Amino acid sequence: MWFRWQLQGTERGTERVEAFSDGVFAIAITLLILEVKIPLHPDSDALNLASALLHLWPAYLAYLFSFIVIGIYWANHHYLFKLFRRTNHMLNWLNLLLLLCVAFLLLPSAVLGNYLLDVTNHRTAIIFYEIGILLPACAWTLMWWYASNNPAIIHEQLDCAYLRSLTFQYLGSVGIYLLAMMISCCISPAFGLLVSMILTLSYLFPPLQPRMLVLD
Amino acid sequence: MWFRWQLQGTERGTERVEAFSDGVFAIAITLLILEVKIPLHPDSDALNLASALLHLWPAYLAYLFSFIVIGIYWANHHYLFKLFRRTNHMLNWLNLLLLLCVAFLLLPSAVLGNYLLDVTNHRTAIIFYEIGILLPACAWTLMWWYASNNPAIIHEQLDCAYLRSLTFQYLGSVGIYLLAMMISCCISPAFGLLVSMILTLSYLFPPLQPRMLVLD
Amino acid sequence: MWFRWQLQGTERGTERVEAFSDGVFAIAITLLILEVKIPLHPDSDALNLASALLHLWPAYLAYLFSFIVIGIYWANHHYLFKLFRRTNHMLNWLNLLLLLCVAFLLLPSAVLGNYLLDVTNHRTAIIFYEIGILLPACAWTLMWWYASNNPAIIHEQLDCAYLRSLTFQYLGSVGIYLLAMMISCCISPAFGLLVSMILTLSYLFPPLQPRMLVLD
Amino acid sequence: MWFRWQLQGTERGTERVEAFSDGVFAIAITLLILEVKIPLHPDSDALNLASALLHLWPAYLAYLFSFIVIGIYWANHHYLFKLFRRTNHMLNWLNLLLLLCVAFLLLPSAVLGNYLLDVTNHRTAIIFYEIGILLPACAWTLMWWYASNNPAIIHEQLDCAYLRSLTFQYLGSVGIYLLAMMISCCISPAFGLLVSMILTLSYLFPPLQPRMLVLD
Repeated sequence: MWFRWQLQGTERGTERVEAFSDGVFAIAITLLILEVKIPLHPDSDALNLASALLHLWPAYLAYLFSFIVIGIYWANHHYLFKLFRRTNHMLNWLNLLLLLCVAFLLLPSAVLGNYLLDVTNHRTAIIFYEIGILLPACAWTLMWWYASNNPAIIHEQLDCAYLRSLTFQYLGSVGIYLLAMMISCCISPAFGLLVSMILTLSYLFPPLQPRMLVLD
Repeated sequence: MWFRWQLQGTERGTERVEAFSDGVFAIAITLLILEVKIPLHPDSDALNLASALLHLWPAYLAYLFSFIVIGIYWANHHYLFKLFRRTNHMLNWLNLLLLLCVAFLLLPSAVLGNYLLDVTNHRTAIIFYEIGILLPACAWTLMWWYASNNPAIIHEQLDCAYLRSLTFQYLGSVGIYLLAMMISCCISPAFGLLVSMILTLSYLFPPLQPRMLVLD
Repeated sequence: MWFRWQLQGTERGTERVEAFSDGVFAIAITLLILEVKIPLHPDSDALNLASALLHLWPAYLAYLFSFIVIGIYWANHHYLFKLFRRTNHMLNWLNLLLLLCVAFLLLPSAVLGNYLLDVTNHRTAIIFYEIGILLPACAWTLMWWYASNNPAIIHEQLDCAYLRSLTFQYLGSVGIYLLAMMISCCISPAFGLLVSMILTLSYLFPPLQPRMLVLD
Repeated sequence: MWFRWQLQGTERGTERVEAFSDGVFAIAITLLILEVKIPLHPDSDALNLASALLHLWPAYLAYLFSFIVIGIYWANHHYLFKLFRRTNHMLNWLNLLLLLCVAFLLLPSAVLGNYLLDVTNHRTAIIFYEIGILLPACAWTLMWWYASNNPAIIHEQLDCAYLRSLTFQYLGSVGIYLLAMMISCCISPAFGLLVSMILTLSYLFPPLQPRMLVLD
């Protein structure tokens, strides 16, 4: 242990970063349900609970969709870190930036659940939620850009075309999320949200199989 | 590591899925207590704390029972994943669907704790709670149905009769939970809840011992 | 893996139970701070924040003391499970009962922090908190009583006198917590709380060194 | 296992303490976002959500900065525990004291986010936040002072000059945090906060490379 550690300096295996990230993903994904507040009757006893629970549907939708988003980041985080040989100080901090953005999603998720049916504010709520899913996409792309260009981190046998296709995929996603935000701003909030959601759900398909260089 | 990973594609061992699921179970089971709100005295100082704490008994009951439910899912999750040789992309998402339903239980649990003593709404609260324990049972059965019919996932030496008995048990539980919900809707809310609870508590007994095919 | 598992039936190593328990301890100990609510100014802007933060001292005290209590359970849980060779279905559920009681401590802790300075209710708050630390002590003693009398669980080389001294210690603690509760009920709430606290703090000292039978 | 454990008494490897600490760091860092409360409209529907979300900027700042603080403690905790050969009872409790102070940061963070723009209370909020980052720095220095002077804990081959430089760094940080607090008390709250923040951000740089004694 001592020997190995001395050799690598601040560069180390990725296990501890992956374990910590998994912890944050698991906590954030579970805390989502705390943002769905149960209807209370502060003033009158005449609350109709059944109708109140049905009117919470935007909060259920936000819960469901944010759960899927964080689940996608969890699954793809494992996928990506399998491509890295080790981590270093910079990558640790870029990873923390990603976790900061993923945990932040709880706030836009709660705002969307509360204000989706509010006619004066639903545009703001939708744009805020779109920012909430844009931010981790940016942090992810930044992390990938740093790691994939650092020969000390990325596995050396990976095919360059494969690496480039990942870069295009991540940059493209950021671009589409931005486009969806502009649609929500200028054309139709609901349509922009739909575009964001469809792009996100496309990540439910299995990711690209890693391709290696042929060595002979 | 590199070699093994390349071999299996997106199919991998079940360790990371189990560790992540354990994390979500541990967080959800601990967050339950946050749904028991302490009695506050917003308007008058004349609150009788002892009486207020005693009147929280529906919240204690919901805490106790939901803790048992999540504990059962935790224990049975380990039991089930021991029957699987590996996981794949689809099973990972079915497992996330289960976790989504388990974490959702916090909301019906809070509703039950708040509205069990409310005469106009206790039927709604009970039915909502029964939905809350029906949903993970459905996700569980779906996950089992997918995995037990996938020869790449299930251990090949397991006895077919044993696998079928598990399928019947899980489908039967979903059926009884549905029946309990109908009892709560049409006959007596409390009686339906009792049926749900008795079925759930029957899972406290040790699960069936896995049976293998005799090879000779 | 397959072979070992088949051999032991539902009896297994203690690693998964310890990891899950550690998770619950870590979450419960961190959630404690959420029970300290920041002072808000709903009606007037004339709140004196400095004075409001100072008047939160009962909440700080409850945070500090409950943190120590859960920390003690965490440390002693590791100590105890080192004495066990394996776990079984019953021990898993007794352990979940312990976790249920440990997580429940968050509620009495919040009540104590809110009502310690309330003249009409501080006796109730203190007794409720004493129940909150009595319950995990009972669950602990029950778990120890079951495990220490089960030759399939306890390490066979442990000295009987050592095992008995642990039983006396745990039973004695339950007795003193009960006594402290009676003092709080009948004599002085604060004095009873002090007795509970002193007993709890005595667990900060290192536990007894395990003694083995001399074999020759 | 049994043999090794008997040998070391209550001194053991650092793995379990590190895993538990990682859990608390991951939970605390994720709970931070719960302290950013979404704007609600209790009385009137005429809330401007966009403006309300923009006016939350002190809460975003507190989230961001506290996330960085806890991230720094997480990273440096791994760094420090690599210098220790084992842990003992005292070090476990000093580590729990550190975790207690780190989790406590959630409260000052919420206070800063709520009161930074409140003219009568922003000085108090800033000083309270500075206390919140001073406390873990003190606990950290205390833990380091105990461990670095205990030959049973610290790796024996580490260079004394290197150990002393860490001691100076940690003591110096406590001193500067105290100075920043005094600046906030007597001169300018915002300037003191800035000093604290700059010192904290300096910990984003990679820590000193451990130096060993040359043995020949």
